[in-house]
Amino acid sequence: MEFVIQQLRSVIIHSIDTFNYSNAEFAGERLLALDNSSHSIYLYAIVLFHQGKHKTVYSKLLDIVDHLGCAYLFAKSCLQLGKYKEGIYQILKQGNLDDETFFNKPEMRFSYENNRSMTPDASAVYHLLGDLFNKVGDVKNASLNYSSALKCNQFDFEAFTKLCKLGVEVKVKNLYKQDVVDEFLPTSPNTILPPNHLNTPINIHVNTPLPSHVGSPFNEDISTPRIKSTTVPMAPKREFIKPKTSYSKVTSRLINPPKKPELKFTTNKDIENSNNYLIQLYIVFAKAYKCFSKYDCYKAIRILESLPDNEKETPWVLSKLGRLHYEIVNYKQSEYFYNKLRLIDRTRLNDMEYYSTLLWHLHKKIELTYLCNELYDLDNTSPITWCVLGNLFSLNREPDEAIKCFNKSIKLDKNFTYAYTLKGHEYFSNDNYEMALENFRTSLIIDNRHYNALYGIGMVYINLGDYEKADYHFKKAVSINPINVILICCVGMVLEKLGKKNLALRQYELANKLQPLNPLPIFKKAQLLFTMQQFQQSLQLFEILKDLAPDEASVHFLLGQLYHLQDDKFSAIREFTIALNLDPKGNYLIREAMEALQEK
Amino acid sequence: MEFVIQQLRSVIIHSIDTFNYSNAEFAGERLLALDNSSHSIYLYAIVLFHQGKHKTVYSKLLDIVDHLGCAYLFAKSCLQLGKYKEGIYQILKQGNLDDETFFNKPEMRFSYENNRSMTPDASAVYHLLGDLFNKVGDVKNASLNYSSALKCNQFDFEAFTKLCKLGVEVKVKNLYKQDVVDEFLPTSPNTILPPNHLNTPINIHVNTPLPSHVGSPFNEDISTPRIKSTTVPMAPKREFIKPKTSYSKVTSRLINPPKKPELKFTTNKDIENSNNYLIQLYIVFAKAYKCFSKYDCYKAIRILESLPDNEKETPWVLSKLGRLHYEIVNYKQSEYFYNKLRLIDRTRLNDMEYYSTLLWHLHKKIELTYLCNELYDLDNTSPITWCVLGNLFSLNREPDEAIKCFNKSIKLDKNFTYAYTLKGHEYFSNDNYEMALENFRTSLIIDNRHYNALYGIGMVYINLGDYEKADYHFKKAVSINPINVILICCVGMVLEKLGKKNLALRQYELANKLQPLNPLPIFKKAQLLFTMQQFQQSLQLFEILKDLAPDEASVHFLLGQLYHLQDDKFSAIREFTIALNLDPKGNYLIREAMEALQEK
Repeated sequence: MEFVIQQLRSVIIHSIDTFNYSNAEFAGERLLALDNSSHSIYLYAIVLFHQGKHKTVYSKLLDIVDHLGCAYLFAKSCLQLGKYKEGIYQILKQGNLDDETFFNKPEMRFSYENNRSMTPDASAVYHLLGDLFNKVGDVKNASLNYSSALKCNQFDFEAFTKLCKLGVEVKVKNLYKQDVVDEFLPTSPNTILPPNHLNTPINIHVNTPLPSHVGSPFNEDISTPRIKSTTVPMAPKREFIKPKTSYSKVTSRLINPPKKPELKFTTNKDIENSNNYLIQLYIVFAKAYKCFSKYDCYKAIRILESLPDNEKETPWVLSKLGRLHYEIVNYKQSEYFYNKLRLIDRTRLNDMEYYSTLLWHLHKKIELTYLCNELYDLDNTSPITWCVLGNLFSLNREPDEAIKCFNKSIKLDKNFTYAYTLKGHEYFSNDNYEMALENFRTSLIIDNRHYNALYGIGMVYINLGDYEKADYHFKKAVSINPINVILICCVGMVLEKLGKKNLALRQYELANKLQPLNPLPIFKKAQLLFTMQQFQQSLQLFEILKDLAPDEASVHFLLGQLYHLQDDKFSAIREFTIALNLDPKGNYLIREAMEALQEK
Repeated sequence: MEFVIQQLRSVIIHSIDTFNYSNAEFAGERLLALDNSSHSIYLYAIVLFHQGKHKTVYSKLLDIVDHLGCAYLFAKSCLQLGKYKEGIYQILKQGNLDDETFFNKPEMRFSYENNRSMTPDASAVYHLLGDLFNKVGDVKNASLNYSSALKCNQFDFEAFTKLCKLGVEVKVKNLYKQDVVDEFLPTSPNTILPPNHLNTPINIHVNTPLPSHVGSPFNEDISTPRIKSTTVPMAPKREFIKPKTSYSKVTSRLINPPKKPELKFTTNKDIENSNNYLIQLYIVFAKAYKCFSKYDCYKAIRILESLPDNEKETPWVLSKLGRLHYEIVNYKQSEYFYNKLRLIDRTRLNDMEYYSTLLWHLHKKIELTYLCNELYDLDNTSPITWCVLGNLFSLNREPDEAIKCFNKSIKLDKNFTYAYTLKGHEYFSNDNYEMALENFRTSLIIDNRHYNALYGIGMVYINLGDYEKADYHFKKAVSINPINVILICCVGMVLEKLGKKNLALRQYELANKLQPLNPLPIFKKAQLLFTMQQFQQSLQLFEILKDLAPDEASVHFLLGQLYHLQDDKFSAIREFTIALNLDPKGNYLIREAMEALQEK
């Protein structure tokens, strides 16, 4: 029979590789009819999983206890179905993993294409555990398992980005120096051995769940022994890691295993070189992403700009550069990179929500409308598409329609933080502070590092006159994104309101240092100096502003005032007239000032 | 560089195998940054395809001309995006395939799991071409390519079922005897060689498109040389079939290729045995499905019942048995198998539309409601779920709600034939004949062998009194499903209407032979004999009916009439009384008959 089984396995795997899943499922049923072993059920479940039949996979694998592959697919389905704890439990039941990872020996990294395995290796299992712990808010175990995943597979960049998103302090250099990797991990008696020792048991990390809290609690935690790592008792070595002897009989007669010793003398050098090359490349990306996740945007940009051109032109880099420049309110550059990104991939959905907000800030109705049409054609069931539509309605001053779109977006992905935030801003601009707060808070529940929502809450409290609370939220936002000039100016504004004018002044000066050409901090500073009757300094700043923001009525109005105070009647009238033309609404105030001028 | 490329390939393929597609995409970008060859673009496209990004795959591969894998994925995406002709064109441009199939030598069938290929083999390409030609209604080329797919991979059962669905006459025995397979194919000079000759060029079949028409036009066509098979000129042997020597250098140093000669002496016998076993098994399924697709239901059931128990308990077999018994109006048995199917897979959606119609026929409101709830929880975006909901509303006599559900179902899958048909029946029961016809006709446009819609049209024409047209459609339905007693009785009814009572009688007798215990034909026959004043024969039949359908008021009423004619006053009164109790509505008619009896 094992020959028939092996032949059916060939049919199934060939069908999977050619995306003919119905055929794979049919052959899979035949396989199970002959052999109901976990080994066969697992292959069948792979076919179901490829078809997105997560509930079926879940029910088929619920009672299979002795198969890591089954546990992995079961937990993967749990991740889809929101049954996170069940998924964790099923994997932990598997006990220790025989470290079957393909990536912890350089020479192994070449053989995978010709050594493909149907069962997941340690890196994949750790990554999945990380995802599951992440979903239940157990940041500690999530980060421990992502770290282990990275340790088994340094090229699981996804695990690295997730680690950063958790706010964990990751030492990139060490990560890519294998002998020091352990510093990620608790120095408990069962500490994981450096991955260049193959076939040594790896323990799955589990801690008593802790509530996640704002900020990055792991800057020390990760590297200190304070974390107790309990290990599930050693499980017997499972047959499925290597297929039944009967199979291997068949197969061994067919691909001898790689001759490792031989390798040493032939390709080791080439392999080492290419391996080092890749690791160096991944280090650059890791550093850049680390800075990005800490909103250390200038540094991140510098790192990405240091990449060779062929890498700079890739979607990942362009999207990050677009986003980074957006975060530092460098809208023109941001637009430049997003346009480049769209040029090389017209069908991209990811990041378009940020691009649409950028276009909103730039008041680019035509581009935004165009984007909406393209994304709607591309996929009108994507939450991003509806987010972008919401931004368009918002720009067209149709808040109710905008809110409908954001709701649709949330309906399609109830964890889509950004949609809640944009919805909050929409309510805010509608003076519906209650709903605005509610939405901003939802954003923070999903992602406690979403500074944009903290900014929104701060704005609400300013308008409600509760400056203490506003101050608290702005400062929290700044602690996450410390170099956003708008946030810094907000802190300044609150300080002004609280009468702490000198502290406010310092905030504006900091913002001004960060972005010398950004008019906002200069305006805020000039305005403040004006109220502090430092007319001379104020005048200098307004004269700079006049060139930076020539169309800003209030600049010319205040300039007019300052010239008036200096009895420079001629200049005063000129500025008032310009202000008058720029802002007919402000009309009455300006006329009053001009009359006052006449009376002199 | 090729070492770096090979290493990145390992990372990507490992990520694909562990369903970590984001990571695969990231590494894929790095790969393309280093090497923009079709070989690398193809691997990247595989990652995108796994993520369902069909539009992206389409645009990325649009201009790649020299890579079969790319053409395959491009065409696969075209199949998803409805750009069928583009897909066909792209594949045909590839010219001849080097027959890289893994399944046309028995011993090869064991090695696939250890010889997995990233590029599709001939069988997969032919299958896809079949799908594309099928979609553009080119039945001739569709069947030719499905046949070729089967020839390269006898275990591509999916291709076989599609061939049957096209109404093509398939000789199962020959299909699984490789040396005769050619009879599928035009005996043109470039006829495909028997598949047990490896590495010989295979030509892709293409004909000038023909409109598809009702019935199976291929019973001869397939095997006659009338089909011109034009072959695209030989393309140069492409490097991607075997990866760049540089890669293979790396890999060869690592799993030597299977030693084929050695094999011959070691496992050939075992392999032959298991291969024969599987082929025999597949022959049984093929025969059963062939009968099923021709509605030769009794034979199909016999074949499936002949399977060993372990196979009989599989979802595929149970679903087919459920459907087959449903088709022969053997509702109790059908329900038995569907229940069994649901017992082993509670999360199954496929075939539930038929199960729900079965429950509708059986008036099982509770079971149907329960089914609705379960499917709605399972997947409320599945067209099947909404079809089932529609049936529930229909059973609850809420036609408008039912139609809404069927429309939703159609919105989710505009080619969901069965939803149109059920919608048609709903309109019919609403006496909205115009809409009913429209929907039945739409069903037939999508699937010209959908006899259920022909039945619906026939019913409409009966009610409109257009018996010629009714006759035409019923007969067409019978030509597709010749053993459905309801259809046969319909033909009889029309013949009655046309005054051809003897011909009608023969139809009822035929139906009665097919299902001796089904009351419908007996009732029709008895009723007809009654009108033909063959009271004695009529009486005998009604006495049989009395036991088969004891709760049928009309049976007792007509029996009463017959006893009356025989002056058996006592029996007559008894039957009239029973009829009266069973059908208070029929009240007035029956009372009249009883009074007539009294007057005697």
